[in-house]
Amino acid sequence: MHFDHVGVATDDAADLAALFADLFETEIVHEEEFDGMRVVFLDVGDGEGTEDSHGPYLELLEPLTDEGSIARFLDREGPGIHHVALATEDVAAALDGAEALGLDLVDEEPRPGAWGHQVAFLHPGSTGGVLVEFVEH
Amino acid sequence: MHFDHVGVATDDAADLAALFADLFETEIVHEEEFDGMRVVFLDVGDGEGTEDSHGPYLELLEPLTDEGSIARFLDREGPGIHHVALATEDVAAALDGAEALGLDLVDEEPRPGAWGHQVAFLHPGSTGGVLVEFVEH
Repeated sequence: MHFDHVGVATDDAADLAALFADLFETEIVHEEEFDGMRVVFLDVGDGEGTEDSHGPYLELLEPLTDEGSIARFLDREGPGIHHVALATEDVAAALDGAEALGLDLVDEEPRPGAWGHQVAFLHPGSTGGVLVEFVEH
Repeated sequence: MHFDHVGVATDDAADLAALFADLFETEIVHEEEFDGMRVVFLDVGDGEGTEDSHGPYLELLEPLTDEGSIARFLDREGPGIHHVALATEDVAAALDGAEALGLDLVDEEPRPGAWGHQVAFLHPGSTGGVLVEFVEH
């Protein structure tokens, strides 16, 4: 398992992506509309990645409607860091591991995420307040 | 510039480090007392790192006194993700770049951070609510 990305909730993904690209001397590598959100990925890797080991990335999440978890997060907390994602070759196995450790799952099974990935979230209440995502490329 | 670590504020770094080591199948690579805090780093890299390109890491920050920015963060927000750090070969130059983009600096100059690094923070008010750290190994 290895670090994949930090997810950031924002009310203007295009604007923040342009700023981060300038600030971190990097570029947008993927963007799409997914699940009622504008989703933008910036590559913040060191250029040493391989075919099997991408990233890490910054993922910017802008809700396009008033519904959904990111819109609720923005209402409650304002813009900022939302979650930390670890890449695994098997999200279902990672969820089994989390359950064996007694952690609370948000997703009982892997589900489709942005960029064609399989994803699942753990409840931050059992992981030190950190919202953890598992992602399978 | 490339991604270096996510900083997490916690009231029990030893406990959370043990959980994350199990959950993410990794290990503690550094721990120390620094600036009134217990600081623990876990390696969440993909094993492809080189001498010049370490990490990424999870950094756990536990205040050992009631003073300081992490203690205040815990009082205000509770435990959770605190900041995102990008590694650079020159923190002073990165600060110049941030200033040229009109961003607000927390640290006008690089200062000593944990693990013998040089660090500087940007004000989250000008970076989409994300507390950004530059770190020079």
